[in-house]
Amino acid sequence: MIVVMKANATEDQISHVKELIVEMGLTTHPIQGSELTVVAVIGDDRKKDRNVLENAAGVDRVVPILVPYKLSARETQPNRTLVRISDECVIGGKHIPVIAGPCSVESAEQILVSARAVRAAGAHALRGGAFKPRTNPYSFQGHGVDGLKMLAAARDETGLAIVTEVLAIEDVDVVSEYADCLQIGTRNAANYRLLEACGKQPKPVLLKRGMAMTISELLQAAEYILSMGNPNVILCERGIRTFEDHTRNTLSLSAITELHYRSHLPVVSDPSHGTGHARMVADMARASVGANCDALAIEMHPDPEHAWTDGAQSITPQALLELVDSCRRVAEAVDRSM
Amino acid sequence: MIVVMKANATEDQISHVKELIVEMGLTTHPIQGSELTVVAVIGDDRKKDRNVLENAAGVDRVVPILVPYKLSARETQPNRTLVRISDECVIGGKHIPVIAGPCSVESAEQILVSARAVRAAGAHALRGGAFKPRTNPYSFQGHGVDGLKMLAAARDETGLAIVTEVLAIEDVDVVSEYADCLQIGTRNAANYRLLEACGKQPKPVLLKRGMAMTISELLQAAEYILSMGNPNVILCERGIRTFEDHTRNTLSLSAITELHYRSHLPVVSDPSHGTGHARMVADMARASVGANCDALAIEMHPDPEHAWTDGAQSITPQALLELVDSCRRVAEAVDRSM
Amino acid sequence: MIVVMKANATEDQISHVKELIVEMGLTTHPIQGSELTVVAVIGDDRKKDRNVLENAAGVDRVVPILVPYKLSARETQPNRTLVRISDECVIGGKHIPVIAGPCSVESAEQILVSARAVRAAGAHALRGGAFKPRTNPYSFQGHGVDGLKMLAAARDETGLAIVTEVLAIEDVDVVSEYADCLQIGTRNAANYRLLEACGKQPKPVLLKRGMAMTISELLQAAEYILSMGNPNVILCERGIRTFEDHTRNTLSLSAITELHYRSHLPVVSDPSHGTGHARMVADMARASVGANCDALAIEMHPDPEHAWTDGAQSITPQALLELVDSCRRVAEAVDRSM
Amino acid sequence: MIVVMKANATEDQISHVKELIVEMGLTTHPIQGSELTVVAVIGDDRKKDRNVLENAAGVDRVVPILVPYKLSARETQPNRTLVRISDECVIGGKHIPVIAGPCSVESAEQILVSARAVRAAGAHALRGGAFKPRTNPYSFQGHGVDGLKMLAAARDETGLAIVTEVLAIEDVDVVSEYADCLQIGTRNAANYRLLEACGKQPKPVLLKRGMAMTISELLQAAEYILSMGNPNVILCERGIRTFEDHTRNTLSLSAITELHYRSHLPVVSDPSHGTGHARMVADMARASVGANCDALAIEMHPDPEHAWTDGAQSITPQALLELVDSCRRVAEAVDRSM
Repeated sequence: MIVVMKANATEDQISHVKELIVEMGLTTHPIQGSELTVVAVIGDDRKKDRNVLENAAGVDRVVPILVPYKLSARETQPNRTLVRISDECVIGGKHIPVIAGPCSVESAEQILVSARAVRAAGAHALRGGAFKPRTNPYSFQGHGVDGLKMLAAARDETGLAIVTEVLAIEDVDVVSEYADCLQIGTRNAANYRLLEACGKQPKPVLLKRGMAMTISELLQAAEYILSMGNPNVILCERGIRTFEDHTRNTLSLSAITELHYRSHLPVVSDPSHGTGHARMVADMARASVGANCDALAIEMHPDPEHAWTDGAQSITPQALLELVDSCRRVAEAVDRSM
Repeated sequence: MIVVMKANATEDQISHVKELIVEMGLTTHPIQGSELTVVAVIGDDRKKDRNVLENAAGVDRVVPILVPYKLSARETQPNRTLVRISDECVIGGKHIPVIAGPCSVESAEQILVSARAVRAAGAHALRGGAFKPRTNPYSFQGHGVDGLKMLAAARDETGLAIVTEVLAIEDVDVVSEYADCLQIGTRNAANYRLLEACGKQPKPVLLKRGMAMTISELLQAAEYILSMGNPNVILCERGIRTFEDHTRNTLSLSAITELHYRSHLPVVSDPSHGTGHARMVADMARASVGANCDALAIEMHPDPEHAWTDGAQSITPQALLELVDSCRRVAEAVDRSM
Repeated sequence: MIVVMKANATEDQISHVKELIVEMGLTTHPIQGSELTVVAVIGDDRKKDRNVLENAAGVDRVVPILVPYKLSARETQPNRTLVRISDECVIGGKHIPVIAGPCSVESAEQILVSARAVRAAGAHALRGGAFKPRTNPYSFQGHGVDGLKMLAAARDETGLAIVTEVLAIEDVDVVSEYADCLQIGTRNAANYRLLEACGKQPKPVLLKRGMAMTISELLQAAEYILSMGNPNVILCERGIRTFEDHTRNTLSLSAITELHYRSHLPVVSDPSHGTGHARMVADMARASVGANCDALAIEMHPDPEHAWTDGAQSITPQALLELVDSCRRVAEAVDRSM
Repeated sequence: MIVVMKANATEDQISHVKELIVEMGLTTHPIQGSELTVVAVIGDDRKKDRNVLENAAGVDRVVPILVPYKLSARETQPNRTLVRISDECVIGGKHIPVIAGPCSVESAEQILVSARAVRAAGAHALRGGAFKPRTNPYSFQGHGVDGLKMLAAARDETGLAIVTEVLAIEDVDVVSEYADCLQIGTRNAANYRLLEACGKQPKPVLLKRGMAMTISELLQAAEYILSMGNPNVILCERGIRTFEDHTRNTLSLSAITELHYRSHLPVVSDPSHGTGHARMVADMARASVGANCDALAIEMHPDPEHAWTDGAQSITPQALLELVDSCRRVAEAVDRSM
């Protein structure tokens, strides 16, 4: 880190800051500039509360230099991580799988019809929520374990791998039992205890970016999972909260580029939540592939007008088929496949 | 809700939308405007997925009219809710209590010294984290149950009520046993299962606003607690995520005014997290009282330069004493007391 | 518009609101819902200050229904507008032109070398600033009219059309004389008097989205130009201000989709300003084409390390050539050309 | 500045960065840390495009150390600047003046009635727009010079100083002739040419923060005025663009504290634009005084329901009177006067 002193900081104040740094077990390196002094700090300061120095007299601000994550950093692992959800759904390589399905598992019939449509469209895994985090307490909260069983039945028939959300530590075991990949949703992206619990089970984890998470915070959240021993983390850009009101969230595709730059973990794009409107999904899916995403997550419902949840952003089976076809062409244009 | 049709929507499309609404058990009321048609919907549409109509052909957008929360709405309860944490810390009335203390419980000695300073400053309750949600997995995560015991010991000596955070459902019982008020932090503000668990235990709950939560979403989060039978919810404005970079968060004091307008629940302001810099806390505390907040939450540490966590935003015991004195004067200027 | 009354609004308050609406020359249509009353307003309320009704007793809020722009709305002109900057740079059709060049015109030599590189890369127009809006008053502010002349000389040699920014009404004539297309920058996107002045001159106008502008506000800004008689407006997404800190701005590609949905005007994407980092530009250019943009604006400098301005986001001539080649492939994958 | 190299940067890359810095006329000071190298740069790098170094091979990022403004910096002038608009309206001292009046000058009668109400409420200057920047081109754009004359007539009768907005360079002279203080609105806060023009005329300038401006950018905008020779700049916090939807803007009161910390210029708070709702103005005015603002700007209209512009946020004369009374009490509680 770099401690920037105020222009009028005294010698005593600078000395005091140096003492505080030495107390932390780190080495100081003061630099007298043309207008003020900065104190560079040498050593791994990541486990310290660096901000504490801001409170010392004469300090203007503290600038971190080292990134606060390790296992998720690209420096740690030069090769990109490949996460295998199933034989046909391996994320992080040249092939770009599509994970599609309804927001919620509504019935055995609905999820089966959905799974067939996903298969027919040429997509590679089935998504669907059995445990649903709903903004409103009076909304449908999912069928729970029954929903997991319906998903498993759909897998049995179609061979599609299952990606489904887990909301609470107490459900991790059962979700891990039925699913091929656990999803941590945007509302739980900083629920660190849940992240740890998912880090202790063996299935891959699809971690959605929190609505207000920076890239660094997302990689630190991934670090919670990785540091528990589970290396199979897939990051997901799904839109952030901004002032824009024409979408539910602002899909920030540069996050894909930045995550590839900072980390070895694969990155999924979710243009359904990233826009909130079915009419925008195909454009943003093609944009995501152009941005070099490693997979797509798409909400599709056999009958969107009657979807129990997220109908506005769900596309039809026919629209999914066309989306996959057009995204495949874009994938080939960027030397990948779908 | 109001369904706004596109300017070129056909009669068939309008009829279809009306049918969908009738299917939902609601009544339609179409209005032919000068340029387009809107379909007003009569009935309680809160439990429906209103957005589903956006997917119907010819629909431009759907505008909700009814607010999506009930128990937290001011209409439901015209009198303001008073939440009693202890005899001296009742939130929602004329008196504005101050909840102060360190970010983390670091040791029995540190929390006891802190509690004495809180008492000496004239504050009314002690805060301190035993379970800590840390962005970085390698940071100090709190002493857990041992920390709760240290807090209880500080209460025994000083008589101050204890406000402390709970991070996971499995800890709710033990935190409820030791604390006088459970805090749900900003990262768990949309952890609905945790909210429900806190709604089932008897102690008051201080619910912090999520970094990217709208007022409506905050009141829906409160609704999760209220709907489980716990009426003692305190809302907390603690800063939101914006483009501003001179603070850790942007303290949005108009949230206090809006929450008072929309809800009967009391509202705490947290200028420590709301700014992230000790030098700003007193100004923002006085501003919060000017904005008519119902309590203040202040981070104070006996030795901020050596705080294990959040040192940059922790003020000293002396600064707390001065803050309470000056805030008391502002409180009196707005016909309240401290 | 729809006036939403409070749940406890009295009959007198509702009557008063109706009177205010009638005073505006509009017709009222009250609807008694299950919990509250809304008053729908029929007639063109766009020239009224609709918000004024919020101040009437008993009103909770006012919801606009009609969009506040007309000439830029898709309803007004079902066919997409084609803006011709030059024979090879026509924006809004199947072909996707690339506008490239340095941030600033630094010298006659530099802009000539740049123009040749732009031509060699297969791009279609030359950009470069002669008048520069700089955040810092002590930074280079551009060569002004001399810079325009250097741009014209580069056009003479290469045949590339010139796109360059205008900062003040007093410069509109001279910029219009030399340039083939006037650019209004993000900082002046709500400088309505400048917009009007550009609406009165004959050259096309490339209007960049303000950093904090909604889609509706951008279309209203375009309306200032259109309503002065200039139909040749090109809209430009160049990133918005959000909490993200890994880019200079957050490129919001869904804006392209929304602008195509709401308007007939063509939309350019600027991944250089939209990210601020050269290493991200190619990914975001390909994403923009995948999102169906109508043109690309790219900052390229013959020697980025020595660029006077915006060096961090300028790519090299070689990188531009590769960018155009790869974007051409994506364009073909979405049935367009480059 | 500090140039942070990548962990795997080569010696050659570090040498090249050092050369680039030396070319800029600055001195380098490399520091070999535990995991990577940083190159500290000594000398005044403010006039350089520091970001250019980001493009050099092996560079991860560039961290500025020196603030990019000088004349507005507190270091430059330790005493706070006092800006005198009139004898009774001096901003920056212990007294907190109130600038009040309607959004627009609608008629000679309306502004006269307004001025009397402003006087009766105990406020200290009259605001009102003769040139109006309207989002919508079809909205009322102000009476122009006629409006200025109406304001002058109101001053003649009441003795109140006049604060009014200027939109274009060509109007600066005439506005400067009639007004006691020129206002630059949020939409023109980065219209640098207008800032310069206001810096060359003799009247004080009230500079509103742009909706997406950081504190540093606001101080750089002020620097444009100061560097032209006009020392009388008043900064204004009027709300920023965020995801919040319960207000028109998010009033960020910590901006007052930060501006006082970084600059010697006085700071006005505008709770009217900062919220957009009349019902919130008094709370946010009291909060602003609690936050130690140096003046208040309040929209008041003699008949808000019939205001031509911004009716929703205009308070009545009676409400202004009560606001001033209550704010005066808060001012006294923070050892100031009103």
